[in-house]
Amino acid sequence: MAKIGIIMGSDSDLPVMSAAAKILEELGVEFELTVVSAHRTVDRMYEYARTADERGIDVIIAGAGGAAHLPGMVAAITHLPVIGVPVKSSNLSGLDSLLSIVQMPGGVPVATVAINGAKNAGILAAKMVGIKDGMVKEAVKSYMEDMKAEVEAKAEKVENIGYSKYLETM
Amino acid sequence: MAKIGIIMGSDSDLPVMSAAAKILEELGVEFELTVVSAHRTVDRMYEYARTADERGIDVIIAGAGGAAHLPGMVAAITHLPVIGVPVKSSNLSGLDSLLSIVQMPGGVPVATVAINGAKNAGILAAKMVGIKDGMVKEAVKSYMEDMKAEVEAKAEKVENIGYSKYLETM
Amino acid sequence: MAKIGIIMGSDSDLPVMSAAAKILEELGVEFELTVVSAHRTVDRMYEYARTADERGIDVIIAGAGGAAHLPGMVAAITHLPVIGVPVKSSNLSGLDSLLSIVQMPGGVPVATVAINGAKNAGILAAKMVGIKDGMVKEAVKSYMEDMKAEVEAKAEKVENIGYSKYLETM
Amino acid sequence: MAKIGIIMGSDSDLPVMSAAAKILEELGVEFELTVVSAHRTVDRMYEYARTADERGIDVIIAGAGGAAHLPGMVAAITHLPVIGVPVKSSNLSGLDSLLSIVQMPGGVPVATVAINGAKNAGILAAKMVGIKDGMVKEAVKSYMEDMKAEVEAKAEKVENIGYSKYLETM
Amino acid sequence: MAKIGIIMGSDSDLPVMSAAAKILEELGVEFELTVVSAHRTVDRMYEYARTADERGIDVIIAGAGGAAHLPGMVAAITHLPVIGVPVKSSNLSGLDSLLSIVQMPGGVPVATVAINGAKNAGILAAKMVGIKDGMVKEAVKSYMEDMKAEVEAKAEKVENIGYSKYLETM
Amino acid sequence: MAKIGIIMGSDSDLPVMSAAAKILEELGVEFELTVVSAHRTVDRMYEYARTADERGIDVIIAGAGGAAHLPGMVAAITHLPVIGVPVKSSNLSGLDSLLSIVQMPGGVPVATVAINGAKNAGILAAKMVGIKDGMVKEAVKSYMEDMKAEVEAKAEKVENIGYSKYLETM
Amino acid sequence: MAKIGIIMGSDSDLPVMSAAAKILEELGVEFELTVVSAHRTVDRMYEYARTADERGIDVIIAGAGGAAHLPGMVAAITHLPVIGVPVKSSNLSGLDSLLSIVQMPGGVPVATVAINGAKNAGILAAKMVGIKDGMVKEAVKSYMEDMKAEVEAKAEKVENIGYSKYLETM
Amino acid sequence: MAKIGIIMGSDSDLPVMSAAAKILEELGVEFELTVVSAHRTVDRMYEYARTADERGIDVIIAGAGGAAHLPGMVAAITHLPVIGVPVKSSNLSGLDSLLSIVQMPGGVPVATVAINGAKNAGILAAKMVGIKDGMVKEAVKSYMEDMKAEVEAKAEKVENIGYSKYLETM
Repeated sequence: MAKIGIIMGSDSDLPVMSAAAKILEELGVEFELTVVSAHRTVDRMYEYARTADERGIDVIIAGAGGAAHLPGMVAAITHLPVIGVPVKSSNLSGLDSLLSIVQMPGGVPVATVAINGAKNAGILAAKMVGIKDGMVKEAVKSYMEDMKAEVEAKAEKVENIGYSKYLETM
Repeated sequence: MAKIGIIMGSDSDLPVMSAAAKILEELGVEFELTVVSAHRTVDRMYEYARTADERGIDVIIAGAGGAAHLPGMVAAITHLPVIGVPVKSSNLSGLDSLLSIVQMPGGVPVATVAINGAKNAGILAAKMVGIKDGMVKEAVKSYMEDMKAEVEAKAEKVENIGYSKYLETM
Repeated sequence: MAKIGIIMGSDSDLPVMSAAAKILEELGVEFELTVVSAHRTVDRMYEYARTADERGIDVIIAGAGGAAHLPGMVAAITHLPVIGVPVKSSNLSGLDSLLSIVQMPGGVPVATVAINGAKNAGILAAKMVGIKDGMVKEAVKSYMEDMKAEVEAKAEKVENIGYSKYLETM
Repeated sequence: MAKIGIIMGSDSDLPVMSAAAKILEELGVEFELTVVSAHRTVDRMYEYARTADERGIDVIIAGAGGAAHLPGMVAAITHLPVIGVPVKSSNLSGLDSLLSIVQMPGGVPVATVAINGAKNAGILAAKMVGIKDGMVKEAVKSYMEDMKAEVEAKAEKVENIGYSKYLETM
Repeated sequence: MAKIGIIMGSDSDLPVMSAAAKILEELGVEFELTVVSAHRTVDRMYEYARTADERGIDVIIAGAGGAAHLPGMVAAITHLPVIGVPVKSSNLSGLDSLLSIVQMPGGVPVATVAINGAKNAGILAAKMVGIKDGMVKEAVKSYMEDMKAEVEAKAEKVENIGYSKYLETM
Repeated sequence: MAKIGIIMGSDSDLPVMSAAAKILEELGVEFELTVVSAHRTVDRMYEYARTADERGIDVIIAGAGGAAHLPGMVAAITHLPVIGVPVKSSNLSGLDSLLSIVQMPGGVPVATVAINGAKNAGILAAKMVGIKDGMVKEAVKSYMEDMKAEVEAKAEKVENIGYSKYLETM
Repeated sequence: MAKIGIIMGSDSDLPVMSAAAKILEELGVEFELTVVSAHRTVDRMYEYARTADERGIDVIIAGAGGAAHLPGMVAAITHLPVIGVPVKSSNLSGLDSLLSIVQMPGGVPVATVAINGAKNAGILAAKMVGIKDGMVKEAVKSYMEDMKAEVEAKAEKVENIGYSKYLETM
Repeated sequence: MAKIGIIMGSDSDLPVMSAAAKILEELGVEFELTVVSAHRTVDRMYEYARTADERGIDVIIAGAGGAAHLPGMVAAITHLPVIGVPVKSSNLSGLDSLLSIVQMPGGVPVATVAINGAKNAGILAAKMVGIKDGMVKEAVKSYMEDMKAEVEAKAEKVENIGYSKYLETM
C-alpha cells in the first residue's frame, strides 16, 4: 500500500505542514510525519532520504522556509519523487523559500507547490500514488467532485440571497 | 506501460520543452507531445485533459509562459498529476510564468519545476511513474549515478590540471 | 440595456469584489454577480463565458487571486471585453495575482485593474458601456465631477483649519 | 463609426505601439495615431484627452514606459475608456511601467494589458467597440477562430512529423 | 523669503506627509500645505504647478501612493525643483509608488526620497533653499549637529548600562 | 556663480554620468567632475564632502552602482543638497543601486533620480540653483520649451506621413 | 583573547542586534556593543573602524536597515572582517537592507547574513575567531551538537505523540 | 599556514569562481579548488565538509547558482566559516542564488557576498585568516592601499584631461 513521508525542517513548520497530513487522512492515504532538518541534522536527513524507498515510502513531502534546502537535498539523495512546500518566511513572504525550492538544477527536480501549499502537496502526492493505486485515484476524483459541488452551492446561495446578504453571513 | 503527455501553449515553447522529450527517451519512458493552448484552443485543452487517463496517460507535463494558465487548467480537469514548466518570458524573465503556475489555490496542485526546467519535468515524471514501474525506477537510479560520475570526473580533472588550464579548455 | 457580469473564483473574494457591484449600483448600471471557479468548476466557467453574450451581458468583470486564471480563461472563451481584478493574495501581496492576470499572450487581452481594484473595474465597465449608452456616459461624467468636488472640499478644509487640526479630525 | 485613438509618450515607443494599429487595420476598426507626451507636452495631452469624445473617439490606447503617467492622466481627464500599454523599459524590464499604469487609485481606472502588449490593446479596444458595433464583434469572433485554427494546424504538424523534425523547421 | 509648497494626492496621505510640515517648522522655513490630486482634480493640479513660482514658492514637495503621478506631473509643468515622496501603498509596500515617482523620463526629474520619507523631503527642501538663504543653511547644519549629539548620547548610554538594561528601558 | 560637483564611485560610471555634465554645459551651469569612491577612497570622499561648500559648490551629484553608498555618505557629511544617480548594475538591473540610494534614514535625504538618470540629475541641479539664479531658471524654462517643441514636431510628422512610413525612417 | 565589536546604526536596531550579543555570551566570546551611525555620526564611525584592530577587535558585526551603509563603510576603512546584518525595514521587508549590504563592489567585502540574522552573525564571528582560538572552535562544535540534539528530541516527540497532539502543545 | 578551500557546484561556475583563486594568489594565501555538487555528489560534499578542518582548511568558499544549496549544506556540516558566492543564474539574474544562500536559518550562518562576488569572497577569506596570520593581514592592508592609489590616479587623470577626453580613452 502507498505511503507518504511528510517531513519539515523545524517543528515551527508544523501548523502549516499538518494540512498535508489532514488531507491525506481524508483521502485515505497512509503517511508518516516527522521533523528532519537539512541544516541541523544532516546525518538524519541523509539516512531518511537514503532509506525511504526500502521503508515503503512512495513519495516524500518536504516543507521548509527561508533558504529552504530540505526538499532539494532529499531529492538529491533519493530516486523517489519529492514534493517541496515553501513555508512562508517572516521577512520575505516566502519568496526566498519558493525560489530556494523550485529553482533546482538540471537532474534533480523538486515538485514545488504554492507558498504554504501543504494541502496541495498532500493532494499531489495522492495523484502520484494514484498512478498505481486505483482506490486513491478514485478518492482524488471524489475530492474534486466535492470541491465542485461546494463552489456550486455557494454560487447558488449568492445568486439567491444577493451579495449584500451573503456578505453579512460571512 | 507508463506514458507521459507533453503539451505546451505554443510551438514557440518547443525549443525549451523538447528537453522533456529527450530525457524521457533517454530514460526509456514512452511519451506523446503536442501543442495545446489554454487560451487559443480551449475546447482542445478541455478534451485533452478530460480524456488523458483513458488514453493511457499517467502524467501530464505542461509548459507555458507569461500568464501561464495551461498547467493549472489541465490540473483542474484531470485527476492525473500535472507537472508545470514555467517557460521564460521575454519581459519578466519567467517570474510571471513561475507565479502563474505555482501559486495554485487549495485543491488543484501543479507540480512546478524551475523556469525552463523541462528536463527536470521529464525526470520528475519518470520518478512518478517509477512508483509503479520498477524498470523506470532503475533508469532514474542509473541516471543519478551517471550524473554523479560525470561531476566526479570533472572534479578530478580540475584538481589534476589546475583551474587555469581547465578554464582554457572550456 | 447594458448588463455587467461580475464573477469571482471564490466567495472569499466577495468582500473585495462587492465594490464593483456597489459602484455599478451607484452609476445605475445593471449587473449580475455570482461565484465561478476556473479551477473547481471548469464546466460552469466554460458555460458562463460561452453564453454570456446571448444572455445580454456586455462586459464581464472577473476577480481572482494567486495563480489567477479566471479572467484569462473567460477572455479566451468569449468575444466580450473582460476586466480582471487581481485579488490580494495572503503571501505575495497580490503580485502573483497581478502577473497571472495581466501578462496574457497575444490575442487574448484582459483589461487589468489595480490589485483589489474592484471599484475601478466597475467604473471601467461603465466607461465601456458608455460607448453605446449615453446615460451611462453621463453618469460617469457626473461621478468624475463629484470626485473632483470632494477633493476640492477637503483641500479647502485643510487650507482653512491647518494640517494639525485636520489630523485631529481624521 | 467607432474610432480608436492611439497615443504614445515618445516616438521611440512606435515600434511597440504600431502593433495596435496593425491589428485594428486587420479587424477593420478606424483609428488615429500620434505622439502625446504627458511630461513634455502637458497642454497637448490635456487637449487631446478633453476633446477626444467630441472628435468621435470611443476608446483611447495609451502606451508609455518607466514612470508611465500618460494612460492614467488621460483617464483622469476623459470619461472614455482608456487602455494602458506598459512599454518595456531599458532598466527594470517594464515592471516600473506596469505598476505605474495599473496601480491607479479608486475612481480613475486604466485597462492595463501586458508589458509591450500593444496588439492585445488593439483587440481589447475592438472588443469594447463591439459592444455597440455588431460588425466589429463579428470581426473579433473571426479573429479568435483564426487563432484557434492556426494553433490546431501547428499541433497537427508536430504530431505528424514529430518534435525533432519540427524543431528543424523552426 | 523661501517658501515650500507641500501637496498630496489625498487627505489620507496627511498622516505621512505632515512630517514634512513639522520638520520645516522646526527648521524655520515657511510652507503652505494642501491637497491636490493629479487624477481627481487635474485642473487644480495644473493651476497649482503653473502658478507656484509667481506665488513665491521655491520648492514643491509632492506625496502620492500607488500609481503616483502627482510629483511627475507637477515637475512636468513647473520649472521649480519638485521633491517626490512615495507614500506606502496598502498592497505593494510602496514599491509601486517608488517606481512611479523615481523612474521619470529624461528631461523631467523628480527628486525622490524614501518610501514615506516626508521628513527627509522637508530637510531636502531646506537644503535646497539653503543655496540662497544662509539662515536656512545654518538651521540645517544645526539640525545635523543635533542628530549627531542624540546618537552619541544613546551610544554612551548603551555603553554605560549595557545592552540588557538598555533593552529594558525601551 | 552656482557650481555643481559631479562625482562617481568609479571611472566605469563615466559613460553614464557624463550625461549630467553635458546637460549642465547646455544649460550654462558651471561644474567640476571627478572620481570619488566611498569604499576605496574614504578619506578623499570625506574631504570632498566636508569642503564642498567652502569651495563654492552648491549642489553635489553623486552616481554609484550596486551597494551604492557614495550619495548617502556625502549627504551625511555636507549640508548641501545631494542628488543620487543609481547606476545600472550588471546583475540586478540597478534595483540594488536604487534602493541603496533612495531608502535613506530620517535626517539624511538624497534626492534620487531614475536608474542611469544622470541627465535628469543635471537638470534637477539646475532647477535647484535656479532658486537663487534667475538666468539658470530661464535656461531651464527654455529647455522645457524646446523639449515640448521637439515632441510636437515628431507628432506632426507621424500624423502627416502615417505610422508605417515613420517606422521606416527610424 | 578574541573580541567582537557589535555596532548598529540606531538604538532601534537593538532588539534585533542583541541576539548577536546573547549567542556570543553563550559561546564564551568577549564582545563590546554600541551604537555607531554611518549617516548621523560619520566621524565616530570612521574612528571606530580605523582603531578597531588596535583596540583588540578581531571581527566587527554591523547591523543596519534601509539604505544600510554602516557595514560597507566600516569594511571600507578597516582590514578586519566585517559581518553585515540587514535589519528588517518597515516598508520593503529588509530587501533594501539586504541589497545595500551584500552587493558591495570588488575589493570591499561584507560577510552578509540573513535579514534580522543577528544570532547567525554572532555564530559566524565565533567561527571566524575559531580559526585561531581552539576553545571557541570547540564551543561552536558543541553548539552545533546541541542544535542537533534539540531537533532530534522534537522529532522523537512528534513521532511518539503524533502531529495532532503535538500541535496542541505548541 | 592558512589554507582556503574553494568549491563550486558545477564546472560551469569556474569562470566566475576563478576570481577567488586569482585574488588569493595575489594575496599570497594558499588554496585548493575543486568541483563539489550538493545535488549530484552528496557523499562527496559531505566528506569534503566533514574532513575540511583536519585537512588544514581554515575557510571554505562555496559558489553555486539557482537553488544554491552548496554553501548552506557545507556550513551545516563543518564548524569552519563558510563564504557563499551566489552565481548569477540565467533566468532570475542571481536573485534566486542570493536568497538561497543568504537566508539561512538560525544556527547555520553563511557569509554571503555579492552576486558573482568571487573576488570579494577571496578577500573576505584573507581577512578571516588575517585574524591569526599577521602576514595575510598586512597583505590585505596593502591591497586596500593599492585600490585607493588606483582610484586616486584615475581621479587625477579625469580632473586633468577632462571628462570628454577621458571617455575617448576608455
